[in-house]
Amino acid sequence: MTKQNDLLNLLLYASNQELEQQIPYIYPSDLLDVINDDNLEEEIIYKIINRLPNDMIGQLLDEEEQEDKYELLLRVQQNRHSAVLEEMSSDELVDMFETIEDKSIVDDLMAALTQENKSDVELLMTYEPDTAGGIMATEFINLYDNKKVQQVLEYLQEIKDQVESQYALYVTDKQNTLKGVVSLSDIATTEFSVPISDIMNPNVISVHYDMDQEDVAKVFDKYNLPVIPVIDDDNHILGIVTFDDIIEVITQEATADIHQLAGIDADEDADSSVKETVRSRIPWLIINLLTATVSSSIVAYFSSTIAQVVALAALMPIVTGMGGNVGSQTYTFTIRSLATGKLDKSNERLVFNREMKAAFINGIIISILAFFLGTFIGQDLQIGIIVGASMLLSMLFAAALGYLIPSVLNKMDIDPAIASSVLVTTLTDSFGFLVFLGLSTTFMEYLL
Amino acid sequence: MTKQNDLLNLLLYASNQELEQQIPYIYPSDLLDVINDDNLEEEIIYKIINRLPNDMIGQLLDEEEQEDKYELLLRVQQNRHSAVLEEMSSDELVDMFETIEDKSIVDDLMAALTQENKSDVELLMTYEPDTAGGIMATEFINLYDNKKVQQVLEYLQEIKDQVESQYALYVTDKQNTLKGVVSLSDIATTEFSVPISDIMNPNVISVHYDMDQEDVAKVFDKYNLPVIPVIDDDNHILGIVTFDDIIEVITQEATADIHQLAGIDADEDADSSVKETVRSRIPWLIINLLTATVSSSIVAYFSSTIAQVVALAALMPIVTGMGGNVGSQTYTFTIRSLATGKLDKSNERLVFNREMKAAFINGIIISILAFFLGTFIGQDLQIGIIVGASMLLSMLFAAALGYLIPSVLNKMDIDPAIASSVLVTTLTDSFGFLVFLGLSTTFMEYLL
Repeated sequence: MTKQNDLLNLLLYASNQELEQQIPYIYPSDLLDVINDDNLEEEIIYKIINRLPNDMIGQLLDEEEQEDKYELLLRVQQNRHSAVLEEMSSDELVDMFETIEDKSIVDDLMAALTQENKSDVELLMTYEPDTAGGIMATEFINLYDNKKVQQVLEYLQEIKDQVESQYALYVTDKQNTLKGVVSLSDIATTEFSVPISDIMNPNVISVHYDMDQEDVAKVFDKYNLPVIPVIDDDNHILGIVTFDDIIEVITQEATADIHQLAGIDADEDADSSVKETVRSRIPWLIINLLTATVSSSIVAYFSSTIAQVVALAALMPIVTGMGGNVGSQTYTFTIRSLATGKLDKSNERLVFNREMKAAFINGIIISILAFFLGTFIGQDLQIGIIVGASMLLSMLFAAALGYLIPSVLNKMDIDPAIASSVLVTTLTDSFGFLVFLGLSTTFMEYLL
Repeated sequence: MTKQNDLLNLLLYASNQELEQQIPYIYPSDLLDVINDDNLEEEIIYKIINRLPNDMIGQLLDEEEQEDKYELLLRVQQNRHSAVLEEMSSDELVDMFETIEDKSIVDDLMAALTQENKSDVELLMTYEPDTAGGIMATEFINLYDNKKVQQVLEYLQEIKDQVESQYALYVTDKQNTLKGVVSLSDIATTEFSVPISDIMNPNVISVHYDMDQEDVAKVFDKYNLPVIPVIDDDNHILGIVTFDDIIEVITQEATADIHQLAGIDADEDADSSVKETVRSRIPWLIINLLTATVSSSIVAYFSSTIAQVVALAALMPIVTGMGGNVGSQTYTFTIRSLATGKLDKSNERLVFNREMKAAFINGIIISILAFFLGTFIGQDLQIGIIVGASMLLSMLFAAALGYLIPSVLNKMDIDPAIASSVLVTTLTDSFGFLVFLGLSTTFMEYLL
């Protein structure tokens, strides 16, 4: 808090000269905290923003949440828009444009860009949002391999502003074909007279522009690189993806999986409106209502059995509930292991066997407990046996489906996080009711 | 695959000289893929590993999964162990030591370390694993602020090996107090004659050694920095955390949340044994069995109502199931939003109101559908009304608890991912049975 207050005071009361001196040491995210404080008056926010130099406003726009970028731009004096847009990252510009509903505004803003920036933005807009091309930035530094380290250092000094938040330099030919990579630490640790061709790594880890962002994240995770270039079919470099994009992707994808497992939209968040929340959740509820009628019909089919032994009605939910728990443990584990790449062809049989063995052991333990519980609640040893037996069968069935359904969906290239839960739950519930009430009906003579 | 084969051929058949030339361009993770191929004979793996230079083996050990590091070390010739350990990162060394059960082996390995490395490892072992101190490395570069850029470049050339995968240099005084930070790109873009004090940023974003790793990840996400220094109470720099540690933390924490929501251990994975799997899952199943008896007793209490109208038995699971779905949608959303920091004090009332409004709208829609379904299955308009009404009440109850329980647990500093699901499910189920069977009993005269 005091940090935020100090910054606010600086922004409001420092002389222009003092502010200018301090600006390089201020982090855009800290500045955003200050201007996004709800207690601040609009007028003061406007005043603060317009005291800032163009490049800092550009950084603020880069850092601001996608849906708030344009609102922030509207607080900048109109005559500075063009200069400020020029300072933004091309990928962040595209993100901002995507949120503006009135396309004539986008056209006006595009018209204010330099030709180079404009064609970068137009290029980026052609890629799918969830691919390497969709998350890359077009700002990267390339050089030819005939340069020496000292020349490169001098070149970097010249283009200082572009080097900020770059971690590697790419060696290309005149056609932009990627020939090698040199990290900034290579540059900083090599004697000035060494040619770049001697220190560049020709074995460049790159990703194709249409690679899914989740797979791009796996490449980052594997190689621990801060930046990876994006290429086309002919190995031309198109842009770069950096670790901070990937941190966002991983968080986003984990949220998507967690949400989808519970039947809510991947991108619902705390800012969603009531309408969006309803839309995000009602489809799953309707599907569940409909599938629940399947298991309900099974119960209805056995209503004469229940009428004869009412204790069964009280025990039913325990049997199906336990099947449901085992099912969700298994599909959750399977879905997450597929997502993180820990479960693949190499170990699928092993994991399936382990799942079934664990379900069998858990099934035996729980069935014995359930037998005592059933005997106690049903006031009948025979009911206890039926509860125990159908519990064990339900748990094994749930474990098998909990593993197989997401695995098969994954092989069919369907996101297992979306459909597994409803399929496993419906089938497990139905099976549980069927086994429990079926066994009870078969052995009815012993229960009366 | 061909890439892996090419690499295998190089490792097996290249001359020593050729291999030496190629080594700098080989990524440790690619090498691990080769030697971890199950089809490769042990003898060949041994041969490959021992052709590699010490620093590459050190990098392999750094990269290898924690539980497999020591196994890899055992494949290295005994007389090279000491040299190879010296090449490892201090934090990875600690990770490896933690997996060795026989502590006398750890003592022997520790004895082989240089004094400096040994004290780094001993220091790291004192920190909690899930904190900044527990994930940091002690390899960082510090310098004094009286140096000029050219001197720094020359110094970096001297200590070349230590600069690999460093992104920033830390300016300290003789007591190691952190005074500022200079990024490698600052160094590479500033004229040689400028003193470091002119370009260092005194406003260093740092984290305290006991900060929870999840909070460290939030600092990275906020500032988009590739590296953040770890400090003690007196602002002495102790180590650094880099973006690749954070990518691992985010993936780990998301897995933990997903697992815990389904009632399995945070660290269960595809390598877990049957025993570990059973241990990970049985506690949750037992808890659920016991809590299910609570709702079961409620049903048992109403057994005379069910005996009179058996259709109720078939409809019950639909009512409680729908409450369960709304509950899990709401607690999942709440838990994830708390974890990503999107839900906090500033918007908690807003989000709660939105949740309740959405639950009300969804409740009305689903209740109307359920009314028709209940009328159809129960063959009775009155039963339809009771199904609809208890559904609406259950859904509102589930939404309220689904929001409130994780929020309160979070304020009590209890991880909401662990306990929310069982609490919300038990209470929602019980409430569902109670309302549905209670209403049915009260209006029994209309149902017969």
